[in-house]
Amino acid sequence: MGRTSDAREKILTAAQSLIELRGYSALGVAEICKAAGVPKGSFYYFFESKEALALAVLDEHWAAQRGGWVRALQNEAEPLLRLRRLFEETEADLRTGQQSCGTVSGCMFGNLTLELSNQTEPIRERLQQIFEAQVDMVEKVVTEARQRGDVTVGDTREAARSVVAQLEGQVLFAKLYNNTQHLEALWDNCLSLLSARRPDVAAVSY
Amino acid sequence: MGRTSDAREKILTAAQSLIELRGYSALGVAEICKAAGVPKGSFYYFFESKEALALAVLDEHWAAQRGGWVRALQNEAEPLLRLRRLFEETEADLRTGQQSCGTVSGCMFGNLTLELSNQTEPIRERLQQIFEAQVDMVEKVVTEARQRGDVTVGDTREAARSVVAQLEGQVLFAKLYNNTQHLEALWDNCLSLLSARRPDVAAVSY
Repeated sequence: MGRTSDAREKILTAAQSLIELRGYSALGVAEICKAAGVPKGSFYYFFESKEALALAVLDEHWAAQRGGWVRALQNEAEPLLRLRRLFEETEADLRTGQQSCGTVSGCMFGNLTLELSNQTEPIRERLQQIFEAQVDMVEKVVTEARQRGDVTVGDTREAARSVVAQLEGQVLFAKLYNNTQHLEALWDNCLSLLSARRPDVAAVSY
Repeated sequence: MGRTSDAREKILTAAQSLIELRGYSALGVAEICKAAGVPKGSFYYFFESKEALALAVLDEHWAAQRGGWVRALQNEAEPLLRLRRLFEETEADLRTGQQSCGTVSGCMFGNLTLELSNQTEPIRERLQQIFEAQVDMVEKVVTEARQRGDVTVGDTREAARSVVAQLEGQVLFAKLYNNTQHLEALWDNCLSLLSARRPDVAAVSY
């Protein structure tokens, strides 16, 4: 191996899996390199520290997840049904992860927020940017829903943040019980948090 | 020092502070003993492993926090106002912690759920028991509120879990932004999640 062109990608992939399974603090650079199948010298060629790797993992993970959020939230369906699709796809993603590794590992951003955000400022800032981006995307949908008279919230920003908070809270329960069904409450809870009138699900496909 | 009668308490106190600040995986037994001011031999006299210590820390922390939950939720005030008091006291506790250590460390149970619950079954089980106890206490209040016609939820258990999920989600944001004001959304969100009529706050003191 060595400093070949795909070593960086291998390190990132291995680190993402290990961080999802065991968090950040429990990992050492040697273990990450072993899992990636690259010599330790390669690591410091690509990343100046374990923290720099964590930031790259966060960026890569959000780039991938953001695609799913865009597909769920930026389309022609009724606004509230797009939120429902986001919850369904989040549950499906957690279930896929559970099937592949035997356990619900949860949301990497929530995990690292609770593990690290009070310890390292660069990671805290990156996680803030990612959560703000999520709240932005939800807020756009809530604003559209309000324009249509589907919801009656006053502060769309606060409402969007509460929807994301509910998502993170239910993912916590899904991880605690190793059971993705906790996410099934999200749709009803979202309608409640937004003081929404329930859309006619049967009439609309997406 | 040595195996004196207060060494166990010193270890527990030091471990609780360190776990709140830096999580579980980042800590070693030697560091905990150093912070506690006890020799490492004492540790294994009282605890058979770091995991056994973590379980004892969880028990101790819940015994203390549960007292606050009982005072907030089991009294003569209107049921919904008791929930409001729980949120206010949770915010006050987080703010006290922030003032003493400079940062919002969040909810230890949420932190350890996301850090560890998929890795160690004994800790997962203990955290499940603690969260079930929290949901039980909230559900009792929701049931009382429903009997009075203050809320219109169907499934009181699911509603109580959603309230706790919202609490954990907003504590996550409080930690992410080192700002306890995120908990101020909890009262309105709780009323929304419970389809509640807003109680007359001015008329009732607690």
